[in-house]
Amino acid sequence: MLESLRSAFSGRLLTGADAAPFLTDYRGKWTGQALAVAQPDSADEVAKVVAWCHAHRVPVVPQGGNTGLSGGSVPEAASDPLPIVLSLTRLNQIRAIDPLNNTLLVEAGVTLLQVQEAAKAAGRLFPLSLAAEGTCTIGGNLASNAGGVQVLRYGNARELCLGLEVVTAEGELWNGLRNLRKDNTGYDLRDLYIGSEGTLGVITAAVLKLFPLPAAQVVALVAVPSPQQALDLLGLAQARLGAGLTAFEILSDTCVALVLQHIPGTRRPLAEVSPWYVLLELSASTGEAQAAEAMEGLLEATMESEWVTDAALATNLAQSEALWALRENISEAQAAESKTIKHDIALPISRIPAFIASTDALIAAQFPQVRQVTFGHLGDGNLHYNASPQPGSGPEQVAEFLALEAPLNQLVHDAVHAFDGSISAEHGLGVLRRDASARYKPPLELQLMRRIKQALDPQGLMNPGKLLKFE
Amino acid sequence: MLESLRSAFSGRLLTGADAAPFLTDYRGKWTGQALAVAQPDSADEVAKVVAWCHAHRVPVVPQGGNTGLSGGSVPEAASDPLPIVLSLTRLNQIRAIDPLNNTLLVEAGVTLLQVQEAAKAAGRLFPLSLAAEGTCTIGGNLASNAGGVQVLRYGNARELCLGLEVVTAEGELWNGLRNLRKDNTGYDLRDLYIGSEGTLGVITAAVLKLFPLPAAQVVALVAVPSPQQALDLLGLAQARLGAGLTAFEILSDTCVALVLQHIPGTRRPLAEVSPWYVLLELSASTGEAQAAEAMEGLLEATMESEWVTDAALATNLAQSEALWALRENISEAQAAESKTIKHDIALPISRIPAFIASTDALIAAQFPQVRQVTFGHLGDGNLHYNASPQPGSGPEQVAEFLALEAPLNQLVHDAVHAFDGSISAEHGLGVLRRDASARYKPPLELQLMRRIKQALDPQGLMNPGKLLKFE
Repeated sequence: MLESLRSAFSGRLLTGADAAPFLTDYRGKWTGQALAVAQPDSADEVAKVVAWCHAHRVPVVPQGGNTGLSGGSVPEAASDPLPIVLSLTRLNQIRAIDPLNNTLLVEAGVTLLQVQEAAKAAGRLFPLSLAAEGTCTIGGNLASNAGGVQVLRYGNARELCLGLEVVTAEGELWNGLRNLRKDNTGYDLRDLYIGSEGTLGVITAAVLKLFPLPAAQVVALVAVPSPQQALDLLGLAQARLGAGLTAFEILSDTCVALVLQHIPGTRRPLAEVSPWYVLLELSASTGEAQAAEAMEGLLEATMESEWVTDAALATNLAQSEALWALRENISEAQAAESKTIKHDIALPISRIPAFIASTDALIAAQFPQVRQVTFGHLGDGNLHYNASPQPGSGPEQVAEFLALEAPLNQLVHDAVHAFDGSISAEHGLGVLRRDASARYKPPLELQLMRRIKQALDPQGLMNPGKLLKFE
Repeated sequence: MLESLRSAFSGRLLTGADAAPFLTDYRGKWTGQALAVAQPDSADEVAKVVAWCHAHRVPVVPQGGNTGLSGGSVPEAASDPLPIVLSLTRLNQIRAIDPLNNTLLVEAGVTLLQVQEAAKAAGRLFPLSLAAEGTCTIGGNLASNAGGVQVLRYGNARELCLGLEVVTAEGELWNGLRNLRKDNTGYDLRDLYIGSEGTLGVITAAVLKLFPLPAAQVVALVAVPSPQQALDLLGLAQARLGAGLTAFEILSDTCVALVLQHIPGTRRPLAEVSPWYVLLELSASTGEAQAAEAMEGLLEATMESEWVTDAALATNLAQSEALWALRENISEAQAAESKTIKHDIALPISRIPAFIASTDALIAAQFPQVRQVTFGHLGDGNLHYNASPQPGSGPEQVAEFLALEAPLNQLVHDAVHAFDGSISAEHGLGVLRRDASARYKPPLELQLMRRIKQALDPQGLMNPGKLLKFE
């Protein structure tokens, strides 16, 4: 059977030990099985692989950089029939760039970092930015509608895409590679495939939006007594800086302490410890001096109020990087200390202080073994509301902590639901949040999703078991 | 039969002369017939009307302010069976506003102007802005994914919506009223309903994004020799002004001359006539002085190059309004002189100068009766590539001009297609561009659209005959 597939397309077909790295996600949480891993050479060859799978009723698991956090890019453990993992990494061409139109046409397997670099080489910005950018692919970013630190200004992956090329579940190639800002000629198939986690078809290329490179960036770290003051600061920063505000991140002192403890070369940026900090970034099309002046004006205004107790302003690149290091190394510091339980949640921004206060209190009362490690993209209402064991936990306490995952998830998800939030802000559902999400969705919405799935993948072959149980 | 509908919901049911205004579009191009016009009082009552229609196999034509330009909001002339026109104008409540979350929850029948005013009263901006804003409704804006003058900075209606409430084709009410910036928990049903022109369901309410009100705005009118220099100016303006650039409109001197001739109180803003002009607007979160300085800096830089031959900078509100009047009255001036033929097209921005040059030349050679009236949102690649009869045409020449509509459309649409553009940028397909659009779409895309339609409206009752012929 594999011989028939091998001769059906141009590219690599991996089995045995060669296939193994594609069957486990990068955190090692999920391992599945597959008939083989297909690495076609082009979009046309992707279509041939999918057409073969369709003809033989073989499921397809599309995979980009395999950096997802929800288990969406590897086969399920007990797949019957066994799927083909369809690796897109050989689709790695930058097909075209049009700086005047501010668009870039790239294939799905190009890494996010390569996309950023191609834009920069043309004097443009591609603003999607996230921790896995050196490995994750733009196809995976679109399939999971990735977020990151600049969503506040530029939007999620969805907002950064003008057109798609997609191989349908039947193995046909749809050319929807429009490079237009406006096009009202029919149903928005593009946004249906974006965020569908490979369950409707395979993204093989995309037209991305580019932006002018900022002339200057200024970063500040600000100490605030509580999330409420962080929110007050957000409102003021938005009013004063407008679209110049390109990042607004919140982090608790627990996060900072973990980074200082585990990441060499980091140091405390302010004299006094504060329970919470905000890291904000201003990007300006004018010069450095005006940007610094605008940020200083904001900080002066906040000092007059009593929202802000202290602040550090980075005046050069090294200082900016030192401030960002406190934010960007939180996950790594948390992992260095112990296993963790993660919650990637979104809330109406106005309700975040009340959510944190009430949910922290519930957790403290019910699960004293848990230390909250709360940080995230406050400007987007997106918290990484994570948990670690208490400091100094031995192996036994860590095991006890990890055994709390299911009830802790339940508590957090119920709280998110009560506050009209989302239990997956930017990581997608995969298998990790598939069933929990379905519990909170209106039944009518699940029914509409099932109808869409039935319409575009009637045999249910595309990435089975991910996003929603369709059968 | 109508008695059964009358007792099935709460609201008004209009027939005869009362129904007539709902059966003709506002330009008087299309008139259809209907069983009756239903004006339900709430989303629940909309659901009852649609459920009744579904049970009785009666088609439904959803209608907002009935200001559409493509005939999407009135029944087709020869409908069998006759539909119900479902007027949403009594769903006129602003349900909630959350300035901290920058969101507004409004019902579908609220006019765009009322939405703008509600935002402003809360110290916020809702940036969607277009000529019909006093009459058009937000439900219609979303159903047709409306554009307008600030898309360059804030996006189309699609980008301004976070969540929807929709009555499905079966008359069930889906609550998708999320007020979150990030939510990756399933298929993007929201964007499927947006822009579907009422053919998949009825939008009854929406959560809209709000923005900080700009502290200052500065407007300039700039004379340029040709569209190529307008494009050069756009690149420079984007680099220097970044997201502060909130409008970038192009207009030919033909447009300006029509406005000067037909609109009282307008006057020529620059000493010399130029073949083309750009109107650009800078919105700043800083003060008036800095905004003016940034605009002056841009104009000085362009004067050094030879792109720009002259420029007028508005230094107060009256001057700004006088400059905007030259742009905003073009359609009215064109209509005051004669009947027109309109083309709402989008192109890759980088290809606009070549498109205008080659298509103008084709038209001049083949249709000397036609005077091109070209203007539009250059920053979005959206041209209103309109046509009027030559100056001084009598009734006979006007009739001759109007008889050219079909071949002129064909010429323009073929040219748009050759330049990878869209034949409907912001007006939607309705019946006006339904068949032309289908000619240029890949057959696979039409097939995917048909599958979506079949999945969500299997009986084909929602706004039949619009967007695509599905049967």
